[in-house]
Amino acid sequence: MFKTSLTIEWGDCDEAGIVFYPNYFYWFDCAFQRLLRSRGLSQRELRRRFHAVTPIVKADAEFKAPARYDDELEIEVAISAEGERRFRAGYHLRSNDTTIAVGYELRAFARIAADGTLRGGPVDPQFLALLASG
Amino acid sequence: MFKTSLTIEWGDCDEAGIVFYPNYFYWFDCAFQRLLRSRGLSQRELRRRFHAVTPIVKADAEFKAPARYDDELEIEVAISAEGERRFRAGYHLRSNDTTIAVGYELRAFARIAADGTLRGGPVDPQFLALLASG
Amino acid sequence: MFKTSLTIEWGDCDEAGIVFYPNYFYWFDCAFQRLLRSRGLSQRELRRRFHAVTPIVKADAEFKAPARYDDELEIEVAISAEGERRFRAGYHLRSNDTTIAVGYELRAFARIAADGTLRGGPVDPQFLALLASG
Amino acid sequence: MFKTSLTIEWGDCDEAGIVFYPNYFYWFDCAFQRLLRSRGLSQRELRRRFHAVTPIVKADAEFKAPARYDDELEIEVAISAEGERRFRAGYHLRSNDTTIAVGYELRAFARIAADGTLRGGPVDPQFLALLASG
Repeated sequence: MFKTSLTIEWGDCDEAGIVFYPNYFYWFDCAFQRLLRSRGLSQRELRRRFHAVTPIVKADAEFKAPARYDDELEIEVAISAEGERRFRAGYHLRSNDTTIAVGYELRAFARIAADGTLRGGPVDPQFLALLASG
Repeated sequence: MFKTSLTIEWGDCDEAGIVFYPNYFYWFDCAFQRLLRSRGLSQRELRRRFHAVTPIVKADAEFKAPARYDDELEIEVAISAEGERRFRAGYHLRSNDTTIAVGYELRAFARIAADGTLRGGPVDPQFLALLASG
Repeated sequence: MFKTSLTIEWGDCDEAGIVFYPNYFYWFDCAFQRLLRSRGLSQRELRRRFHAVTPIVKADAEFKAPARYDDELEIEVAISAEGERRFRAGYHLRSNDTTIAVGYELRAFARIAADGTLRGGPVDPQFLALLASG
Repeated sequence: MFKTSLTIEWGDCDEAGIVFYPNYFYWFDCAFQRLLRSRGLSQRELRRRFHAVTPIVKADAEFKAPARYDDELEIEVAISAEGERRFRAGYHLRSNDTTIAVGYELRAFARIAADGTLRGGPVDPQFLALLASG
């Protein structure tokens, strides 16, 4: 389990004064990138060490309660395998102990070939263990 | 069925040169708002005529192929009922006859009370018919 | 002088791998809102206490060096009067002791009348002192 | 003079119901990219034909009147030289014949060397003539 947080900014909300929903997916991605970094894996390091990237395959979110600017958003990320060639990043967003949204991303694990092309393959178990640890 | 299109802009892509995925949800929402407008229902008119808003309940997308800037994105929107209190906006995004993404939003139909508060209720059949027509 | 910082996210960069420049203005606004909050002035509190909002009048930035995702961005904000009816929020963005961008916003001080309309007027000296302090 | 237009979307506005200002710079960039494309210069073609990119050096905007979602925004772009090594893209944004914002970008002209590094230099006169024509 990885936890991170952020403050909802004025510019993240729409005229109804609540978060414009595509921003939740932006925060999913931010939380995922922060998790990678917390494991020493910036995008650069991920490429150097695993010669791989993690393309998005599917994203899904359910919106349980509205959130507003100035609200602190707590994000929990849980990583798990999803078959051999996918992994799942599950997200739980809370503000003041209220669940705001739950969702997940499915991501592939694509090796970068010498000519720069991407080729999907099984998720590296070492990579998965690193993300799912802690 | 409603169709609209847009051109993917440079700022919509990430360092991999492909669309940063939260933008697809932004375009889902844009397509939905354009559909509303095509039926004479701006957000303002929706409030005036139906005294209602359409809060997002769930959003989901599967990413089938990458899209890049300068690509023209064709968006098809199909509206259908989903139980009594929800409706579904289904999206099919194509570029050069290739499916880029498919997904949907579930939305509620919330009446605006005299004091400004929102109260969920059954989707107005006239509203649904208006959106699903054409 | 107010200081804040943020990490540049993957989604903030374009295909060239550097920050897509409109994001710098988003961060100017974020830094300004954080300054307000650090003085106890959320947008809500600003309206309650001063019956005012601070509409943007002008924004300007010079881009000195590129910044990339994973870079930590340090933002300094300095507030000063600009005539009687404007104030200036100056921004200095650094990463690893390198200046990334400098810029400013000019903002007005608009009182919210009883009927909800906005009326420009002199910047409240107490408001300005509160922001410029520290 | 190049003209383009776009419709302001719901997600582009903040809680005050007006455009969140960083979006104006996003639209400046969109208009510039559309101008390039109208001259047959996608980013890819620009690189192929001129071996160059056009990094942003400065951006500035004055906000004259608020714009709201559903508003149609007309954008005029005028290109001119600014010394030997810079060019200026001036923007005039109107909605319903009201000026919403005026501003400009200064951009450099950077040649892409064989090793991929960028080197600033004089703006190619053929490039400038192509953009300023019409």
